[in-house]
Amino acid sequence: MPRFAFRIEYDGGPFAGWQRQAVLPSVQGAVEAALDRLEPGEHTIAAAGRTDAGVHATAQVAHADLTKDWNPFRLSEALNHHLRPEPVAIVACARVSDDFHARFSAIERRYLFRLITRRAPMVHERGKVWHVQNPLDVAAMRDAAAHLIGLHDFTTFRATMCQAKSPVKTLDEIRIEEIALPNGREIRFHLRARSFLHNQVRSIVGTLERVGAGSWTPEDVRQALAARDRAACGPVCPPQGLYLCGVGYPDDPFV
Amino acid sequence: MPRFAFRIEYDGGPFAGWQRQAVLPSVQGAVEAALDRLEPGEHTIAAAGRTDAGVHATAQVAHADLTKDWNPFRLSEALNHHLRPEPVAIVACARVSDDFHARFSAIERRYLFRLITRRAPMVHERGKVWHVQNPLDVAAMRDAAAHLIGLHDFTTFRATMCQAKSPVKTLDEIRIEEIALPNGREIRFHLRARSFLHNQVRSIVGTLERVGAGSWTPEDVRQALAARDRAACGPVCPPQGLYLCGVGYPDDPFV
Repeated sequence: MPRFAFRIEYDGGPFAGWQRQAVLPSVQGAVEAALDRLEPGEHTIAAAGRTDAGVHATAQVAHADLTKDWNPFRLSEALNHHLRPEPVAIVACARVSDDFHARFSAIERRYLFRLITRRAPMVHERGKVWHVQNPLDVAAMRDAAAHLIGLHDFTTFRATMCQAKSPVKTLDEIRIEEIALPNGREIRFHLRARSFLHNQVRSIVGTLERVGAGSWTPEDVRQALAARDRAACGPVCPPQGLYLCGVGYPDDPFV
Repeated sequence: MPRFAFRIEYDGGPFAGWQRQAVLPSVQGAVEAALDRLEPGEHTIAAAGRTDAGVHATAQVAHADLTKDWNPFRLSEALNHHLRPEPVAIVACARVSDDFHARFSAIERRYLFRLITRRAPMVHERGKVWHVQNPLDVAAMRDAAAHLIGLHDFTTFRATMCQAKSPVKTLDEIRIEEIALPNGREIRFHLRARSFLHNQVRSIVGTLERVGAGSWTPEDVRQALAARDRAACGPVCPPQGLYLCGVGYPDDPFV
């Protein structure tokens, strides 16, 4: 059976997360239902990152085995047709070898977290960013983030329900970008690692926000990491600012 | 009665336009209803630009006369409270002199039109941009736009229902910006003039899109303008890519 890789964009708002659920709507369920309409039988799709409820993607990667040897462009067109009106789109599609696995072949994940600081309620970016009403000290957040780069035991920044075998991970990058908006300021956190623990990005951004607000110092973040204790973590920030925006493979299947 | 100026951001999607209507929801109606909750009696608010149904704003400007001499910050906070959950926010508020008029004192309007070209359906930008499935030639659109800059009779690019006394206007700027997106390309049209005719921006952008697609040449646009004939216009593009993003006054009331 020919295997295909898909790059998928979605708005996580209406979904209970990537992973298929018995009753609640999921992104996996939406894509599998579209595949089922294309070919008889039931399809299973495996993704690089099983994003939580409300988390978005601009470049989730998933793979599935189909019966027919589709032209990849026609396959993406047909899937997008059947996905309407769900806020899910196949933005790239490629035929891949049978040993390609969207999750296990991945060597890098990139996440973007979008935060907007302004006093007034959100209008155009509602549901797309974390809205913080007070200004944040970006320089202090950068100092705090520096303590988290590299190889660490991230027990503090990991959901208690996390199923990863080890809390030891290498965080390759946390880049914090500041953008002036017509009304307010946007702060973008760019995180990159081979893999992430459950809730790791939201635990880190929620903690860095406390530094930006002046409640924590960068040194407090270093100590929280060293404590290797979930109770030492700052508040986990809300999901609607988080985007899975890239997955890396030894050979990019889409070029 | 003290007069206040407001800078207002809104998502035009759920509204029949800025202007108050008997039955349909309008932005003006939403803001006036919020004012009515703050002070007894009926309030009227006058805006710099009466945007059409579906058109957005990041910086509409309007003014209203109130009874109480409000602190401007507290007034904006109270209005935003009463505007919830409408996608309308007061992003700035200032006490102004009695001769300030949001519409008649304005000496410049700035509009942004957002267009995204990509094959796949829109996800995150749905309702916020005009989605065009084929790539566009930006250089050709810039050549065509150059013919429209300056003082012209814009009869071709004016809705037949336009109530302006004269079709002769000076268009100060059409700047076309191209931005690479994770999935697709965004084309932003920045237009600036003292004032615009009804449907002028959407008539211009819809015509320029035909040039970008290769159906029209820049010379066709020059001839369409010279024809001074509404029938010579290209298709009027949809409203959801259009943003009123700035209004200029001899003295900025918000600084």
